[in-house]
Amino acid sequence: MNQINTKVGSLDLNTKKIVEKISEAEKKNCDIICFPELSITGYPPEDLVLSNQFIENNKKALNEIIESTRNITAIIGFIDKDINGTYNAAAVVSNKKLLATYRKNKLPNYGVFDEKRYFTKGKDLVVLKNSKIKIGLSICEDIWDDYEICKLQSELNCNLILNINGSPFDLNKKELRKNHLSSVAKNCNSYLIYLNSVGGQDELIFDGSSLVINNKGEIISSLPSFRESNEIIDLQIPDYKAIDKLKKSEIGEYKIIEKEIKIIEKKDSKYIPNINKSNRLEDILNALILGTKDYAWKNGFEKCLVSLSGGIDSALVTYIATMAVGKQNVKVVTLPSKFSSTHSITDSEQLCKNLGIELNNIPIKESHEIFLKSLKNMFDGTKENNAEENLQARIRGNLIMAISNKFSWLVLSTGNKSEMATGYATLYGDMAGGFSVLKDVPKTLVYELSKFINKNSESEMIPKNIINKAPSAELKPDQFDQDSLPDYSILDKIIEKYIEQKESIQEILNSSEITSIISEEKIIGILGMIDRNEYKRRQSPPGIKITSLAFGRDRRYPISSDYKFSYKNYSSS
Amino acid sequence: MNQINTKVGSLDLNTKKIVEKISEAEKKNCDIICFPELSITGYPPEDLVLSNQFIENNKKALNEIIESTRNITAIIGFIDKDINGTYNAAAVVSNKKLLATYRKNKLPNYGVFDEKRYFTKGKDLVVLKNSKIKIGLSICEDIWDDYEICKLQSELNCNLILNINGSPFDLNKKELRKNHLSSVAKNCNSYLIYLNSVGGQDELIFDGSSLVINNKGEIISSLPSFRESNEIIDLQIPDYKAIDKLKKSEIGEYKIIEKEIKIIEKKDSKYIPNINKSNRLEDILNALILGTKDYAWKNGFEKCLVSLSGGIDSALVTYIATMAVGKQNVKVVTLPSKFSSTHSITDSEQLCKNLGIELNNIPIKESHEIFLKSLKNMFDGTKENNAEENLQARIRGNLIMAISNKFSWLVLSTGNKSEMATGYATLYGDMAGGFSVLKDVPKTLVYELSKFINKNSESEMIPKNIINKAPSAELKPDQFDQDSLPDYSILDKIIEKYIEQKESIQEILNSSEITSIISEEKIIGILGMIDRNEYKRRQSPPGIKITSLAFGRDRRYPISSDYKFSYKNYSSS
Repeated sequence: MNQINTKVGSLDLNTKKIVEKISEAEKKNCDIICFPELSITGYPPEDLVLSNQFIENNKKALNEIIESTRNITAIIGFIDKDINGTYNAAAVVSNKKLLATYRKNKLPNYGVFDEKRYFTKGKDLVVLKNSKIKIGLSICEDIWDDYEICKLQSELNCNLILNINGSPFDLNKKELRKNHLSSVAKNCNSYLIYLNSVGGQDELIFDGSSLVINNKGEIISSLPSFRESNEIIDLQIPDYKAIDKLKKSEIGEYKIIEKEIKIIEKKDSKYIPNINKSNRLEDILNALILGTKDYAWKNGFEKCLVSLSGGIDSALVTYIATMAVGKQNVKVVTLPSKFSSTHSITDSEQLCKNLGIELNNIPIKESHEIFLKSLKNMFDGTKENNAEENLQARIRGNLIMAISNKFSWLVLSTGNKSEMATGYATLYGDMAGGFSVLKDVPKTLVYELSKFINKNSESEMIPKNIINKAPSAELKPDQFDQDSLPDYSILDKIIEKYIEQKESIQEILNSSEITSIISEEKIIGILGMIDRNEYKRRQSPPGIKITSLAFGRDRRYPISSDYKFSYKNYSSS
Repeated sequence: MNQINTKVGSLDLNTKKIVEKISEAEKKNCDIICFPELSITGYPPEDLVLSNQFIENNKKALNEIIESTRNITAIIGFIDKDINGTYNAAAVVSNKKLLATYRKNKLPNYGVFDEKRYFTKGKDLVVLKNSKIKIGLSICEDIWDDYEICKLQSELNCNLILNINGSPFDLNKKELRKNHLSSVAKNCNSYLIYLNSVGGQDELIFDGSSLVINNKGEIISSLPSFRESNEIIDLQIPDYKAIDKLKKSEIGEYKIIEKEIKIIEKKDSKYIPNINKSNRLEDILNALILGTKDYAWKNGFEKCLVSLSGGIDSALVTYIATMAVGKQNVKVVTLPSKFSSTHSITDSEQLCKNLGIELNNIPIKESHEIFLKSLKNMFDGTKENNAEENLQARIRGNLIMAISNKFSWLVLSTGNKSEMATGYATLYGDMAGGFSVLKDVPKTLVYELSKFINKNSESEMIPKNIINKAPSAELKPDQFDQDSLPDYSILDKIIEKYIEQKESIQEILNSSEITSIISEEKIIGILGMIDRNEYKRRQSPPGIKITSLAFGRDRRYPISSDYKFSYKNYSSS
C-alpha cells in the first residue's frame, strides 16, 4: 500500500516516485502494489484534463511505468482516453504489460468535486484473481453511497475489494469512512483495502489514513494520517467460492474483465497489523501544517512571512508555519499603528521568543497620517467610518506584500473562518497573502488548537496573554470584536448551522440553543453579513478545507444575489 | 416572447415581472407567452439550488404565477423537485392550472456550466397542441449537439420548436447560434422560437438576441441584443400532419406528455417581422456596458469609481462606466507618483472634459517615500526589484478602496485580459476593485473598442493622445510595457491560441504566424507566465466574459501545478 504525496501536473516527479516504489516492492517479493487515484497526474488535475497534450503525456508516463514493472502486479491511477471519452482510471500492470484498465464508474460532481466536467463513466468490472484470491478493483466514489460496483464484485465472489482514492480530509471524514467502509466489507463478505493519497493541493488536504478491513468489518490495519507511508500488508483471506452458476461475462450493464495474476502464499509471514490512532485536534493541526507545507513547496517557496498583530490568529499561524517549513524559514513582522496596544508588541515578542524566531518592527503611524492627509479634501465633512480604519489594514497589506516581492517569501494570511463568514476582515489588508491557513478554522477552534498546542509542548508556545485577552482588530481606540459581533461561541454555532449543516433561517430561529442567547434580529443580521460578504471571499487567498463545508470551491454562491431570500419567507406568498 | 432581465435569488422581483407581463399579454390576446430558462430564480442560481428553502419558495412563486394566469398559456422556467431529484424545468400554465412540466434533458457541465452539480435530467417529452399546431418544448442545451429532443419531437410531427434559454454571450456565439439553430429548424422541418434571457450576472452576460426561424431555416425575426424586449410574434405555420402510426405514448426512453392548449388563428394579423442587426465591436461594447450596469444595480451600487492612469484601459473603463450608470454617477481620481508623466494627468483631464466628469487629483509621491523609508532597514543591501514598483500600485489600491469605503462607490478595476494572462498587474494594487470590466478584453481589442467609440461619437471621447502613446505602467523611470512583454498584437495572438483555442505549445511553436515574429524562447516564456500567474487571477475581482474562454469560472486551473508540462514533452520519455 503506497500512500504517496503526488504533485499535480508533475508527471515526471510522480512517475519517478512510482517507478522507485515498484522496484522496492519487487525486491521485497510483494505480489501486488497499489497507488492512489490519478497518482500519475496528481489529484485533482482540474482543467489540465482538458489538454490532450497532458493526457498524452500521462499515457507516456504510464508506458514508462509499464516498461519498468516486472515480477509484480502494480495498480496505478491515471487518465485514460479513447474515442468515447476520458476516464479516471486504474491501470493493472505486470511483466511489462498492461493487463487491464478499470475506469471509475461513479463520478462525484458535488462539493469540491467536478468529475463530470472531465470524465466519462466506465462500464467494465475488473476482477484480478488466482485460484484462491479474487480482487475487485474500484476507485474512490465507487465504494460510496450504495456501492453498486462492490456489490456486483461480491456477487462474483470477490474476497478482496481494492479501492484506490484521492479522498480529501475534513474533521468528520475519518469516522465516516471507518463506519461506512466497515459495513461495505461486512455486507460484501470481503476483505477491503482502502488506499488514500496524502498531501495538500491548494485548498484540499488528502489525509492518507488508508485502511485494511476484514470480512467481518473489523479494521485490522490503518496507515498513518498526514504523511507518506508505504506498508506491506500480508493477509490471510479465506478462499473465494467458485461460482456455481454459468460463467458470467456480463452482470447488469457491466462487462466483466477477469485477469489471472500471480499471488504466492507466504508461509513465513511476520506481518503485524498496526492501528494508527489520533484525536480530533491533533488531526486538524496536522492538516493545517501539511496544507501549509505543501502549498509552500509545491509553489516553490522556501520561506513564509506572517504579520503579527499580537492576537491569537497570527500567533497560531506562526506556530503552524514553524512546524510546516522550520523556524529558520519563518519571518515575522509587527506593524503597529497609533491604536496598537503595548501588549500587541510585547505579546508578539514573547511569541517569537517561545518559537525561536526574530521579530521585525515597522511602525505604520506615519504612513497612516500621510494617507489621512492625502484624503483630507475628499473626506472633508464626512463622518469617520471603516474607510479610516481599513487604511491601516491596507498599509500593512502593502508593506507585507512589498517584503514578499523583495525576498520571494510566501505571505500567510491569518483570517479565520468566523471572519471570512462575516466579512470581519479587510480586503487587500489583513486578507492579503498567498495562502490563508485558518480560512476554514472557526475562531473557537483557533482557541482550542492554541491551548492544545501549549498542553502538548514541553514549554509554552502561544503566550497565555494572547490566549486570554479579548480579541480586537485595534483599528480604532478601545475597539473589540465583540462590539460588532456576538460572542464567538454563539457566532460559530450560527455559522456551523448555516454553512455546514445547511440549515435554513427558520431552522436556526427554531434552535433554542441559539435563541436563548441572542435575539432573532441579531441572528438575521449575522446571516445577512454571511450572504453579503461573498464578494470579499471571492478575492481571498486559497486556504485549507478542514470542515465538511468550506468557503471556496466547496461553496459556489453568486455574488450578485438578493440575499434576503435567506431570512424571509418568499414575501408575497 | 419575453426576453427579460431577472435577478438571481430575487424571487419576488422576478415573479412580479412575470405576472405583469402575463397580464399584459392576456390583454393583447396572445395565445402563448414564454419566459427564459429559470426565470423565477434567475440564472445561474449556483449553490442556492442546494437550499430546500430556496426551492420551496421558488415553487410558491410559481403557484402565485399560476393563480394569476387566466386565458393564455404561459411557459416559465423554474426549479422543480420531487423524490428522485431536482430539475431545471419549464412550467406550462393556463387558466390557473399547471398543465405540464418539462424537465431539461441535456445538462451542460462544461465551461461556465455546472448543471450536473444541481440537476437530474428529465425523461419526458412535452408537446402542446391544437388541431393545427404542435409545439415541442425544450430548454437551452437540449437544442445543441445532436438535438435529440428536437429530433424526437420532429418524429412526433411537431411544427414548432419552442426552446427557452439562459445562454451567455461570447463574441462568436451569435453566429454559432444562428447557423446551428437554422439547421435544427430545417432538419426538423419545424418553425423554431429561441428565447434567451438578457442581463449581466457576475461574470456572465446574457445577450438576449432571441430568434424566430421558419421551417426552411430562415431567420424571420430577431429580438434586440443586450436589452429587455417583449415582442408579439404572429406566425403562419403549415398544419402538422397527423401521425399515421399507432398513437405513441413512448419514444425511445422518453414518455410523451401531450396537452391541448388554446391557439386561435388571427385573421387580421398586422405582424411585421423585424431583424435586429449589430456588428462585432458594437456587441462587445454593449456587453461590457450591460455587464457593468447590472453588476452595479444588482449589488446595490449607484456610483462607480475609477482610478485614471492616463492610459487607455482606465480611459475605456471610464467611458463604459458613463454609459452604464450615467456620467453623473462616475467618479474618477488620478493618483500620480514621481514616475508619472505630465501627459498622464493632462490626458486624464482631457478625457474627463470629453466625458463631462470631474477629476480628483491625489498625489502619492509623499506616501511612496514614507513606505520606502519604513522598509529601508529590511531592504538594506538588496537590489531594486518589483517590490519598490508595486508599493506605488498598492498605495493607489489603498486610496481608491478608502474612497470606496467612505462613499460606498463601486471600484471598477481596469486591467485587461493580456495583463491578467501574463500577471502584468499588481495584486491589491491596480487589480483592486469590485468589478473588473476589461478582464476578458485583450489589449488589442481595448484599442479597437476605443477607436470604434470615437468613430461613432459626435465628438472625441477617448483622447487621441491616450490611444497613440506607448503603453506604460509608469512604476519606474522610462518604463514601457514592451520592455517586458512582446508587442500586444503578437502577445494577444499567443494568448488566444493558448487559452481560447486550447492549442498546445507544440502547435503554437508550429505556427509560422507567431514564430516569424518572436523567438521560441520568448513564446515559451510567455506561456510560463500565463501558467504561473493563476494565483493572481484567483484573487482578482469578477469580470465580464466576452470571449469563448475567459479566466474565472470558465477556466479552472490548479494553482499548485507544475506548469512545465505546458512547454516540455514529458521529459523522461
